[in-house]
Amino acid sequence: MADFDTIGKEFVKFYYATFDSARPNLSALYRDNSMLTFETQQTMGTAAILEKLTNLPFQNVEHKTDTVDCQPADEQGGILVLVTGALMTEGEQRPMSFVQTFHLKPEGQTYFVFNDIFRLVYPAA
Amino acid sequence: MADFDTIGKEFVKFYYATFDSARPNLSALYRDNSMLTFETQQTMGTAAILEKLTNLPFQNVEHKTDTVDCQPADEQGGILVLVTGALMTEGEQRPMSFVQTFHLKPEGQTYFVFNDIFRLVYPAA
Repeated sequence: MADFDTIGKEFVKFYYATFDSARPNLSALYRDNSMLTFETQQTMGTAAILEKLTNLPFQNVEHKTDTVDCQPADEQGGILVLVTGALMTEGEQRPMSFVQTFHLKPEGQTYFVFNDIFRLVYPAA
Repeated sequence: MADFDTIGKEFVKFYYATFDSARPNLSALYRDNSMLTFETQQTMGTAAILEKLTNLPFQNVEHKTDTVDCQPADEQGGILVLVTGALMTEGEQRPMSFVQTFHLKPEGQTYFVFNDIFRLVYPAA
């Protein structure tokens, strides 16, 4: 079995590739007890999370990750991931910095997203 | 018992107040199985984490938090926290954006930091 760092980084690659090309397919990564905080809005469960993610104001988006850090979140195989990066949306000339943390939990041979918190980051000065 | 959001936000307030005024006291918040990723460097255990945090290149620092988002991390009382903010260090004219995620675990009537990942965030454009 791959180590937490490899799994976390592969997950992140798959997550943003799916987000940017086939957003509805993200549903496979959430469960009914999954939580999403997207900016100030909190949602729970696959259906509500997908509704949120597929109805964001931008339809075309490209994520570029700058850093992906992973740690084991517990002794049952959970993985904590912190991503920093930039996203470019349609109609925006400049990329925006974002940060996202995922708490992945194992389920059989795979993983799902239990916690997901997303924030845009504005320049400090 | 207070809810996860109140606990997470109080923790963050206490953490940065301690960091900025009495950094060695942060040791009370870590345990021997705690993990810290500070930029690219990984450490584990109270002693190694404190050595890292007390030997950062800056001695005087002030954290300002912009956003603090919390979610329950499991059914045992764990809390996931994502912080975005700015920090001002001695000798630097401009604040730097940072992001930090904490995974807090309950221990009796209190909490300790199990996971801690810190990254500076550079402007996307």
